[in-house]
Amino acid sequence: MTVIHVQRRENLAALLPAHEADAILVTGGVNVRYLTGLASSNAAVLIRADGGATLATDSRYIGAARRLCADIEVVEESDVAGALLPESGRTGVEADHMSVATYFRLGGGHLRLSGLVEAVRMVKDDTEIDLIRTACELTDRAFAEVLPELRPGLTEKEVARALERRMAELGADGLAFDTIVASGPNGAIPHHSPSDRPLERGDLVTMDFGALHEGYHADMTRTVAIGEPADWQRELYDLVRASQRAGCRAVRTGAALHEVDAAARDLIAEAGYGEFFKHGLGHGVGLEIHEKPFLSPRKPEPDHEHARIEDRVPVTVEPGVYLPGKGGVRIEDTLVARDGGPELLTRTTKELLVL
Amino acid sequence: MTVIHVQRRENLAALLPAHEADAILVTGGVNVRYLTGLASSNAAVLIRADGGATLATDSRYIGAARRLCADIEVVEESDVAGALLPESGRTGVEADHMSVATYFRLGGGHLRLSGLVEAVRMVKDDTEIDLIRTACELTDRAFAEVLPELRPGLTEKEVARALERRMAELGADGLAFDTIVASGPNGAIPHHSPSDRPLERGDLVTMDFGALHEGYHADMTRTVAIGEPADWQRELYDLVRASQRAGCRAVRTGAALHEVDAAARDLIAEAGYGEFFKHGLGHGVGLEIHEKPFLSPRKPEPDHEHARIEDRVPVTVEPGVYLPGKGGVRIEDTLVARDGGPELLTRTTKELLVL
Repeated sequence: MTVIHVQRRENLAALLPAHEADAILVTGGVNVRYLTGLASSNAAVLIRADGGATLATDSRYIGAARRLCADIEVVEESDVAGALLPESGRTGVEADHMSVATYFRLGGGHLRLSGLVEAVRMVKDDTEIDLIRTACELTDRAFAEVLPELRPGLTEKEVARALERRMAELGADGLAFDTIVASGPNGAIPHHSPSDRPLERGDLVTMDFGALHEGYHADMTRTVAIGEPADWQRELYDLVRASQRAGCRAVRTGAALHEVDAAARDLIAEAGYGEFFKHGLGHGVGLEIHEKPFLSPRKPEPDHEHARIEDRVPVTVEPGVYLPGKGGVRIEDTLVARDGGPELLTRTTKELLVL
Repeated sequence: MTVIHVQRRENLAALLPAHEADAILVTGGVNVRYLTGLASSNAAVLIRADGGATLATDSRYIGAARRLCADIEVVEESDVAGALLPESGRTGVEADHMSVATYFRLGGGHLRLSGLVEAVRMVKDDTEIDLIRTACELTDRAFAEVLPELRPGLTEKEVARALERRMAELGADGLAFDTIVASGPNGAIPHHSPSDRPLERGDLVTMDFGALHEGYHADMTRTVAIGEPADWQRELYDLVRASQRAGCRAVRTGAALHEVDAAARDLIAEAGYGEFFKHGLGHGVGLEIHEKPFLSPRKPEPDHEHARIEDRVPVTVEPGVYLPGKGGVRIEDTLVARDGGPELLTRTTKELLVL
C-alpha cells in the first residue's frame, strides 16, 4: 500500500506552508499508522514540506517498520520524538497528541499544530472505505446470527458477549468500541455498560456495537422489542426511525454539518422530545471510532474549512430518545457520503424487530 | 469501595507538599479511575492537599459518577480540566497525561508533575491484588482449555482467536492487550502479530496473552513445541526456563529493580545468548498492562525512591531469547511481591509441553 501512503503524506505536506512550517513531527499513534502503515505503540514520523518522511520506532517494531516502510528512511530509537526533531527549520508538533512532559523535554517552544492529519484523514481513499465496509459487513452478520438467540432471561452481559464472540468468529480483529446493551429502563442511559440485568418481556433493548477490521471501525445500533411493544414504545421507535431516515438523507456532499444534525433533530424536537436527545447526531468513522467530522447542532465559525460533508467521508447517523426511568431508543448506521448520494454500509433492517 | 478510594486520595495528597503543590489536577483516565472508581473517557479529578476531591465529567458519565462517587463533589462539564482548575493556589497538572493543546488552552505555566499517581498505584491494595488474581485465573483456564485444540495446520490467528474466545466465555471483560501468537521463525519477533501462518510440526509456538477483569490485567506467556523438539529448541527452552525461575526468585521485597533483571539476564548472557534478549525482564501490572516498576538492566539514579521491589507490587517476569530466522522462546508469569516471598498469580505449568 506504499502508493497510498505516499499520497497521504503529500496531502499532509501540502498543508504545511499555510502554517509556515517546514515539517511536522507526527506522534499520534493513529496518525503515524495512517501515514506509514505501521501500527505501533511507540513510533513517530517526520513529514517535510516536500513530502519526504523519516520514521522512528524502537526495537520491538523496527522489523515491521523496515518491511512496511521500505520507501522511507527508518531509524531505530526509543525516544522517537527526540530522534526526529530537526535542529533547524520550523517544525510543528501535534499539540493534541504530544504530552506536556514530552513537549518541554524537547525544549518547549515548538510550533503547536492541531488537527492537520485529522483533516487529511477525514476524506477516505477507496482502500479505507473498503475496510470500513468489511467491518460493517461483519457487524451486520454478527447481529443477524445472534438475533435468534435473544430471549427473556438472557442478561445484557450475555447478549454483549454473544455479539462480540460472533464478530470474532466471523474474523473481526477486535471490537470497534465497548459494546453497549441497554435493556428496559437502562435504555435511558446512552452509554450504558452491559449489566447482569436479564431481558424481560416488554423491554426495548438497545445494542450499540461494531467490528474492528485492519484498524478500521464499524458502528451500528439497533433497538429491538422483547415481546409485543406498548404503544409508547412503538411510537418512540417510529419517531426515532423517521429521524434517523431524515438524518441519513441529509448526508449529502456540500451539506453543512449542523444542517445534517438539524434534519434529524427537528423531527424529535417537533414531537416534543428534544430535551431527551442530548448528544450529537453522529461522527466520522475510520482509524478511530470517533473522528472528524462531528455532526452536532453547533454552528461552525464562518471561515471553517471542514464544516461541510465532503465526498468519501464516512459518518454515523444515530439519533436517540432517552426517557429517564422508562427506557430509550437509538438507531444508528454507518454510511459514507458520495457525490451521487450516501452509501449505506451497515445494512441491517430498521423495521422494529419484535422477538 | 469508597473507603479504598478515600485512602488512595489521601496517599496522593500526602505527596503534594514535597512538590509545593496545593492541589493536583488528575486527567489521566486510568488515574481518575484509580482515585474515584469512575471509568470514563472524559473525566478529571482535582485532589487537594487536605485530601478533598472534586470530580468532573460530561453528561454521558454523570449518572455513573454521582452513583460511584457519592462522597465527593461531582460537576457536570464537557471541559473537565477547565472546570476544575482553581483560580488561586499552586495547582499541578499531570504532564504525562495532559496534551500540549490542553495545557496552553488552560493558560500554560501550571506546575508540571510527573508520575505521582503512578507512584501511589505501584503498591496495590488487597482489592486490586484480588482482581489481578482473578484475571490471571481466567488466563490460566483459557490456556488449559485451548491447549488440547492446538495442532499442525491451525493458523496463528486461529490460535489467538481461540484463546480470546475462551477468555470471553469464562467471563473476562476483555483482552489485557493484543494477543501474540508467534510460531516457528516468527518466534524470533518479540511482538509478532498473529498471522495466517499455520503451525507446523517442529515449531516452537509462543503465546503471550491475558484477560482483563474489572480494569485489571493479567499477562502470561508460554512457549510450547508442536511435535518432538530438536535439541537446540529444548536447550533454548531449558535456558529460558532457568532464567525465568531465577528472575521469579529474585522478586523479593527490598531487591533493587536492576538486580532482579540481572538475576535472570546473567544466565542467558553466560550461555552466550545475551545479545538475543533485548527487552527488559518485566514490568508492573495493574490498571495498565505496563506500569511501574520496570525491571530492566538500567541502574536507577542514586536517590530514586522507587528503585526497589516493595510489598504488594505485582510484576511480570518474562525473559526471552529470539534467534533471527530460527525462532524464539519466552516464558512469562505475573506474580506479586510479598514480604514472605512472591505469590505466583499465573499458575500454568512451565514444563515444556510437547503437543
